[in-house]
Amino acid sequence: MTPAPGLAARAARPPVRGLALAIDVATDSVTAALVGGDRTAPLIRRRLVPPAAGAHPVSNERLVQEVDAVVSELRQAAGVTVAELGGVRGIAVSVDVDPAGAERGDGPGTPALDALTATVRDEIVARPDAEVRTVRRAVAVTIGEHWRGAARGRRAVLGIADSSAERGGSGIDGALMLDGRLLGGPGGQAGRIGHVPVDPYGPGCGCGARGCLTAVASSAAVVAWAAAHGRFPATGTEPDLLGAVGRAAARGDPVALASLRRAGEAIGFAAAAAVTLLDLDVVVVSGPLVDTAGTVLFDAVDDGYRRHAGLGQAAAPRVVPGELGPDAAVIGAAAMVLHPERYG
Amino acid sequence: MTPAPGLAARAARPPVRGLALAIDVATDSVTAALVGGDRTAPLIRRRLVPPAAGAHPVSNERLVQEVDAVVSELRQAAGVTVAELGGVRGIAVSVDVDPAGAERGDGPGTPALDALTATVRDEIVARPDAEVRTVRRAVAVTIGEHWRGAARGRRAVLGIADSSAERGGSGIDGALMLDGRLLGGPGGQAGRIGHVPVDPYGPGCGCGARGCLTAVASSAAVVAWAAAHGRFPATGTEPDLLGAVGRAAARGDPVALASLRRAGEAIGFAAAAAVTLLDLDVVVVSGPLVDTAGTVLFDAVDDGYRRHAGLGQAAAPRVVPGELGPDAAVIGAAAMVLHPERYG
Repeated sequence: MTPAPGLAARAARPPVRGLALAIDVATDSVTAALVGGDRTAPLIRRRLVPPAAGAHPVSNERLVQEVDAVVSELRQAAGVTVAELGGVRGIAVSVDVDPAGAERGDGPGTPALDALTATVRDEIVARPDAEVRTVRRAVAVTIGEHWRGAARGRRAVLGIADSSAERGGSGIDGALMLDGRLLGGPGGQAGRIGHVPVDPYGPGCGCGARGCLTAVASSAAVVAWAAAHGRFPATGTEPDLLGAVGRAAARGDPVALASLRRAGEAIGFAAAAAVTLLDLDVVVVSGPLVDTAGTVLFDAVDDGYRRHAGLGQAAAPRVVPGELGPDAAVIGAAAMVLHPERYG
Repeated sequence: MTPAPGLAARAARPPVRGLALAIDVATDSVTAALVGGDRTAPLIRRRLVPPAAGAHPVSNERLVQEVDAVVSELRQAAGVTVAELGGVRGIAVSVDVDPAGAERGDGPGTPALDALTATVRDEIVARPDAEVRTVRRAVAVTIGEHWRGAARGRRAVLGIADSSAERGGSGIDGALMLDGRLLGGPGGQAGRIGHVPVDPYGPGCGCGARGCLTAVASSAAVVAWAAAHGRFPATGTEPDLLGAVGRAAARGDPVALASLRRAGEAIGFAAAAAVTLLDLDVVVVSGPLVDTAGTVLFDAVDDGYRRHAGLGQAAAPRVVPGELGPDAAVIGAAAMVLHPERYG
């Protein structure tokens, strides 16, 4: 993926057409991009928005402000005028919904999402007639990896996306594509791999169950376990804490390695369960853990997967890291607007 | 379900039409039935064929002999002539395939199945033009429970079927219906819940993996655990051994109760994983354990399920025993022939 070409480069390229405005609202960032359906290089600008202390979950009002700021920045960077935004085919918003928060009714859950997307459409883009899609972030990540990443051309895919960035974030979530189509499920909740149990004796989870994948293998769980068992700080921003664990693991710190191994083996266990149950082609794992400590993590993922995948499923290297990094969600959200026949 | 009416009753009913010949080949029995598409009471005759000592897996030759004998018995019981069998719309054979055996190439795997069904069609029924379907037994059980059992009217279903009857049998297998259709998966292997891991520290399984559901919760695993921890015999036919554990549990024997609880909690764990991942409407559990010790087993299934099902999934009573007992497989196999638009 290349960065947005900016004003200078823009003069040389063909007129802007067939674009989607994609916005990814994660717990620690708002990312917006104009993605072209016939372009291999999406135009992307990102703005990190570290939440204020104690401000999690982010309020809907705050989200609207941040989305407005990011779209303005995107317009300037890409040289897109309001009139050109009129040529945008649709707007896709990917949101990191905390399932437990949605259950409780707080956090950026469904009603808040509806309000956010209406504001984007009517006020920020000023296109009351534009198609608007909102989607769970893990769904967008999985579609992104299928469209242009590690799951290209595969028919049966599980995407595992760790979106947690601050303690209390949604943690690990996921989405499934079966027979080349997104699986919704009767309640639209299919793919919630983060709350699949991986250990009958595992820790309690915020969702009320015990031994969930996210309680063992999310970024938040990794930094918390490291802090409880070694000389790692217990407070700070999660990217900082995770970075410290990753650097310590790289120089052989046993606690950092053990925390990452515990997480990786649990991811391998969950992947084995899903592949065995669904006869999947590939499991794609994305998120800050992969971006920060991919090699150490994946050694353990492979071990856990091979230990628990039977019936010959372990023979193929079916669990792979995502290829798109933090951009997967905007790319996937855009694909839902640009290719409704495949991803709508 | 009522038994076959026999010759006397037959005189009073309308001519035989719209029938499927369904044959269920399990590890300790061959069951055949003529099932009518417009009848609520399938006609069923069963013949238990205890395998000779050391004769497992059953040879293909032996299977053909047994199927021939069962179909002959069925004809006599139902008063069906060879000419009337000419009116059979199709033949469906459900076979308990041991996935590990199929991997190794022995047991009634796919090539043996093809030979068996060809023999049934060409020689036993003498209808070389008849449609023939063969199906994994767990698929037939799940379809049976969907057509006329505990999953009627549901859209997203996991069937868990324990077919093990002798040590070395296929153990727990399963099948999935999503959006009201059977899920095959790229390799036709979807639904293999028996080899989904339920414990990272669990026992090794014949499939090569560790902690599989079937290694903890199949009938064979329950009798083996009881024999290893209490005063239960370690050798004998599995129905006898399982019966002894069931009777002991009913009078409060702690080892029998512990073995059933261990199995039930593991089934609950696996059900929670599947419901969370796939947003299922219902999980139907069938097999000798349910038929023998359903109440004790399901107390533990419920506990395991509630402990590990988060996101509000635990609220509904989603894990239920099958309603059709050992007849589920022939009923489901027949449904695949009689209702190809739904189950084909």
